[in-house]
Amino acid sequence: MSSVLGQCFRVMTFGESHSGAVGTVIDGLPGGMAVDLDAVQQQLQRRKPGQSSITTGRKEEDQVVCLSGLQEGLTLGSPLTLLVYNKDARPEDYQHLQNLYRPSHSDYSYEKKYGILAHSGGGRSSARETLARVAAGAVAEQLLRHIWRDFHIIAYTHRVASLSLEETPNPCFSRLEVDRSPVRCPHTQVSREMEQLIKEAREQGDSLGGEIRCAIHGVPAGLGEPVFHKLEADLAQAMMSIPASRYFIMGDGLQSTTKRGSQNKDRLQRLADGSVGYTSNFCGGIEGGISNGNAILFSVGFKPPSTIAQKEETLTRDLQPTTYQSSPKRHDPCVLPRAAVVVEGMACLILADHLMRQQSQNTLRPLAKLEGLQ
Amino acid sequence: MSSVLGQCFRVMTFGESHSGAVGTVIDGLPGGMAVDLDAVQQQLQRRKPGQSSITTGRKEEDQVVCLSGLQEGLTLGSPLTLLVYNKDARPEDYQHLQNLYRPSHSDYSYEKKYGILAHSGGGRSSARETLARVAAGAVAEQLLRHIWRDFHIIAYTHRVASLSLEETPNPCFSRLEVDRSPVRCPHTQVSREMEQLIKEAREQGDSLGGEIRCAIHGVPAGLGEPVFHKLEADLAQAMMSIPASRYFIMGDGLQSTTKRGSQNKDRLQRLADGSVGYTSNFCGGIEGGISNGNAILFSVGFKPPSTIAQKEETLTRDLQPTTYQSSPKRHDPCVLPRAAVVVEGMACLILADHLMRQQSQNTLRPLAKLEGLQ
Amino acid sequence: MSSVLGQCFRVMTFGESHSGAVGTVIDGLPGGMAVDLDAVQQQLQRRKPGQSSITTGRKEEDQVVCLSGLQEGLTLGSPLTLLVYNKDARPEDYQHLQNLYRPSHSDYSYEKKYGILAHSGGGRSSARETLARVAAGAVAEQLLRHIWRDFHIIAYTHRVASLSLEETPNPCFSRLEVDRSPVRCPHTQVSREMEQLIKEAREQGDSLGGEIRCAIHGVPAGLGEPVFHKLEADLAQAMMSIPASRYFIMGDGLQSTTKRGSQNKDRLQRLADGSVGYTSNFCGGIEGGISNGNAILFSVGFKPPSTIAQKEETLTRDLQPTTYQSSPKRHDPCVLPRAAVVVEGMACLILADHLMRQQSQNTLRPLAKLEGLQ
Amino acid sequence: MSSVLGQCFRVMTFGESHSGAVGTVIDGLPGGMAVDLDAVQQQLQRRKPGQSSITTGRKEEDQVVCLSGLQEGLTLGSPLTLLVYNKDARPEDYQHLQNLYRPSHSDYSYEKKYGILAHSGGGRSSARETLARVAAGAVAEQLLRHIWRDFHIIAYTHRVASLSLEETPNPCFSRLEVDRSPVRCPHTQVSREMEQLIKEAREQGDSLGGEIRCAIHGVPAGLGEPVFHKLEADLAQAMMSIPASRYFIMGDGLQSTTKRGSQNKDRLQRLADGSVGYTSNFCGGIEGGISNGNAILFSVGFKPPSTIAQKEETLTRDLQPTTYQSSPKRHDPCVLPRAAVVVEGMACLILADHLMRQQSQNTLRPLAKLEGLQ
Repeated sequence: MSSVLGQCFRVMTFGESHSGAVGTVIDGLPGGMAVDLDAVQQQLQRRKPGQSSITTGRKEEDQVVCLSGLQEGLTLGSPLTLLVYNKDARPEDYQHLQNLYRPSHSDYSYEKKYGILAHSGGGRSSARETLARVAAGAVAEQLLRHIWRDFHIIAYTHRVASLSLEETPNPCFSRLEVDRSPVRCPHTQVSREMEQLIKEAREQGDSLGGEIRCAIHGVPAGLGEPVFHKLEADLAQAMMSIPASRYFIMGDGLQSTTKRGSQNKDRLQRLADGSVGYTSNFCGGIEGGISNGNAILFSVGFKPPSTIAQKEETLTRDLQPTTYQSSPKRHDPCVLPRAAVVVEGMACLILADHLMRQQSQNTLRPLAKLEGLQ
Repeated sequence: MSSVLGQCFRVMTFGESHSGAVGTVIDGLPGGMAVDLDAVQQQLQRRKPGQSSITTGRKEEDQVVCLSGLQEGLTLGSPLTLLVYNKDARPEDYQHLQNLYRPSHSDYSYEKKYGILAHSGGGRSSARETLARVAAGAVAEQLLRHIWRDFHIIAYTHRVASLSLEETPNPCFSRLEVDRSPVRCPHTQVSREMEQLIKEAREQGDSLGGEIRCAIHGVPAGLGEPVFHKLEADLAQAMMSIPASRYFIMGDGLQSTTKRGSQNKDRLQRLADGSVGYTSNFCGGIEGGISNGNAILFSVGFKPPSTIAQKEETLTRDLQPTTYQSSPKRHDPCVLPRAAVVVEGMACLILADHLMRQQSQNTLRPLAKLEGLQ
Repeated sequence: MSSVLGQCFRVMTFGESHSGAVGTVIDGLPGGMAVDLDAVQQQLQRRKPGQSSITTGRKEEDQVVCLSGLQEGLTLGSPLTLLVYNKDARPEDYQHLQNLYRPSHSDYSYEKKYGILAHSGGGRSSARETLARVAAGAVAEQLLRHIWRDFHIIAYTHRVASLSLEETPNPCFSRLEVDRSPVRCPHTQVSREMEQLIKEAREQGDSLGGEIRCAIHGVPAGLGEPVFHKLEADLAQAMMSIPASRYFIMGDGLQSTTKRGSQNKDRLQRLADGSVGYTSNFCGGIEGGISNGNAILFSVGFKPPSTIAQKEETLTRDLQPTTYQSSPKRHDPCVLPRAAVVVEGMACLILADHLMRQQSQNTLRPLAKLEGLQ
Repeated sequence: MSSVLGQCFRVMTFGESHSGAVGTVIDGLPGGMAVDLDAVQQQLQRRKPGQSSITTGRKEEDQVVCLSGLQEGLTLGSPLTLLVYNKDARPEDYQHLQNLYRPSHSDYSYEKKYGILAHSGGGRSSARETLARVAAGAVAEQLLRHIWRDFHIIAYTHRVASLSLEETPNPCFSRLEVDRSPVRCPHTQVSREMEQLIKEAREQGDSLGGEIRCAIHGVPAGLGEPVFHKLEADLAQAMMSIPASRYFIMGDGLQSTTKRGSQNKDRLQRLADGSVGYTSNFCGGIEGGISNGNAILFSVGFKPPSTIAQKEETLTRDLQPTTYQSSPKRHDPCVLPRAAVVVEGMACLILADHLMRQQSQNTLRPLAKLEGLQ
């Protein structure tokens, strides 16, 4: 019941870190849509561990395979199945875990829920599950680009531990700019300092958290829903479903809550070309749950990974004190550079679902009036 | 599609601020459950505007009426319909709005979505819709208390503008303690200062935001889902669906993201009585999307209300510059005291849904092992 | 969980036969759609008991009230709530039932499910719940007419007990033709004989069943879904959810299953005007779960009502033998004339949901190609 | 949107007849449940084409593979993925189809819906998709057996063309009895005559339809839902979603609709051992949408397959008259023996979903009262 997301663009993920495969099935795609599997693969490469000295040493091949839904590169309208076979599955690396609860992992809560515990690697709570989200998100992104020609989404590292970029009022970076940095921070000097921080933590067998920011351009006004499925509510759910995420902030949210109402207004104004603009974007592009045509902006906080290379105290499954130390090889000192790719994927899944809901909602409208929603 | 929440405990709300009624239908309630409508009414009273000098002067009677689902106070297992008839519906107060977009309201985005605009009071984006959530949440709370004898939930004002309580490591207040304060801040001195701040803003025709914190005790380990419906993800969605909410922080989330992994561990420990406890609760009671038995803690930020008593610049619906001023009588300078009640309601809806999912999930488990989930 | 139908056009019903009201909430309506409440009321009149000498003597006023979702006759895109207050609620008529299980009613199975039993009138299994379906269906019908100018749906009585109409290859009657007959059978002579049969059964305190047929014209090719939500599968579910329905037959289904494949072909042919037609319509207008442009035809069987005016043997709730006799006044000897209206309503709900799904599915298609689905 | 079934026991299928694989993902399984993949394989063998002289000559290996969700034979509570790789994928057999609409296939309606047509073998409308349903259904059956020790389900061929078994008031056959017959008809002499009929049709390049009956024992009273998700409504949807199905009849439905109410009563009676029984089972074990403890009985009609080995007239995709003849090798003269296995699978999916819903519904009931639902 937990692994399905979306109402009209519906995504399911499956697979544990050490099962035969990790994958996704997308149900609800329009027929006849060109899907570029290379672009999907490219997002998987960006998420992949082992890309640089500051991420985990694990090697994952992560070659995407399509098992259904495509014919000569076009969707049939049937479920699109994408998966990656697990090759680096070495359960023996994890066998010492079978009898203890790793500290600040979900071993204890999972066992309480299911009455059984995946021997190794966290089962469904493994970050490896997120590759299925990235694959599905890359397909969603292609759908969005088919509809909105100016659609652009970028997530980047804004902060590592206490080291952050300056505030950027209207951030808009290319993937190239962001990917130049191993930390995925688009500011060269700050990126170097972040890299240094992460290397130090790694050497000490420790880990760091921080904040990812995401900027989405090219979404017209009118996307989203009032009440329970506000666009920001669905984005919050999607972001808080990413492993290790700790907070979600919409637009300028933290500052907004300290301001006076009179200081927090994004006022409509008529632009020179007769179109509608705003004097500011404190709200992050969504009002009353529905996009207002401005850039959609939000931030997601990630805690430092719980897997560290230090000896720690915990309990065995029969509640006796014990110590635990994870394999240093599999230690990822900072998830932010990879989490940015997952943030982009999840945001595209939510937007694609709301786009397809909106097409349904537009049933009665004169077609010429659909504007951005061509 | 937007007005239904939950999978097993399913809630729908209906009604605009100026339609015949605002209400809720709950589908999926167990049969034979005693429902105390007085307790529902009591939560509605707590949410009601006009309770004190610092909230809006509007009078809303908000008398709850049950139209279906109960027989002599017991649920029949059929949809439970609760509603409040709208009596203070004075559309004429709003008629001057028909031709302009109020600044930082959702008039423009709604019109873009639906191609039509509720004349008055924001339609579904009106805060009045939240009374349906509070009524449904109060029923959910009763269900939770039937199952978990120690269940307790409290939301309170932690911060108004920049004035905040000190950090409370394990907050647990009674509703009595919280309701003594017109701001719903359980610390007497800070509450007085907050009240003063709000009065000043009110006098200046302005408004203030801040932060609500919520603490939930008595939820056993094992509630929630991995992947998309993590308990914190569903809570985040619920909170970000409340009008004016701007951020959601899980547990100690802001601080956690600046710490090192080794400093951010909630370690299991065996308590004197043989049960399991934790050395700390940085994570806020949820690990890997599933409750760990500790108190569930989160924070929600609210912006200052957009309705202020000052003259403002905006555009008419045919995009001409104009000025706008709302009726001073209907101006609520700070939503926090009332929002706290909505936060409690929404959290109970999410917990009730996850409880009922978990009963389904427990299908095969030897009954004696269900512990807290008796 | 049981009272919500549909994915994009989502309908909930609520209310017991003796609660405050019976009603429906529709979520997902497009904004700006004109809703004619008189036309809704008219369908309720057609469903109403007490219309003629052959239906139950109960008087139900059934005046529809709209509590939300409309503004000056146009939908706001928000949930549309329609209800009928219960006035003829005389629980005392039913109080003698509290201690026994009525034979061939659902008293026993309901009590086993919910652990509680509605004192009176069957609770949610009461046929009175169907008025909410008829109201929602009438709104759905209006939506369908907005989109498909030639849309026409008619359900009529094809058979009472063993007395049936001759086979009609391409049935298409107006509501006027059907409503002239108190049995809702469009053939005058057969209608009179059916009426006679029903009167005889009524005099003997007995009841009769039969078959309703439904013909839907004006649905273009391309509506429906493969696999689980085939259009005929969703229609079957909708029809088998009507109280007292016993079978669902698609098109010429009973005969088709006795024929050879070579005799059961609906062959495509090019019509004189260049459009596509078929040599026959054995399949009833749906192939592979998707409409093929031909008329949609199906049949629904209804058993004789279980409420008869004869003394019967049964068990008390503590499983002692007893006898039972229902109040003769409330005895409806044949539900077919009223069931026809419910069949129309349910079919419109399914079609409206699939229409709105299809708009979502059409996201990428060049608008000029949408043909009938404009 | 079309490929997901169920609310608590949620099944998705994916795969076209000529894609890489056909499979299923089950979300919502309890953790710690033993799954016997051999028993799954056994149901796939029973569904497989090429089992006898009267089914299609196509060879399909149909070896089930598990990609996720199991650990040492036990469910983890995570999505269970089962699939069969497509090996007999010979798209060239179908290439001549690319430019015409096969008569009484779904080529035309699919193209109208999706704007694209699977080149070969019908895409999602291929009967091959049903192997995914059979695999998922076999897992559901195991869950049901874990809960209800006496659970037994059997589907068998009751009629081929016009040749049928005599009415069996309380049918209960073993799979052994049914599988002895290549037609899956448990009566030896009638089976031989049916076999003869099918062979004759085959020789003439023609095909036959008929009726499958299904009998389910061991389901306690109290399973199902009122209103839209009546147990018989969900069963009807499931059965009408099987390719080539044409009707669904609940219990003694056809006869019931010709009888008088007084003749159609299943009366409760107290059995010698103090338990509750019925004088008859006209209703087929479900009253008001909820199981009554009696055997669940229903019938499903299947049309003769549209693929025959005769030359036929049809239209090309640019609407020119043409002739069409399918490959004789791939011609299956009667789907009934294989459809019986799909009927069993689909029924188990519906029952498993309702079982898990009911566990959720039972949240508040004293455990000792759950009886059969332990």
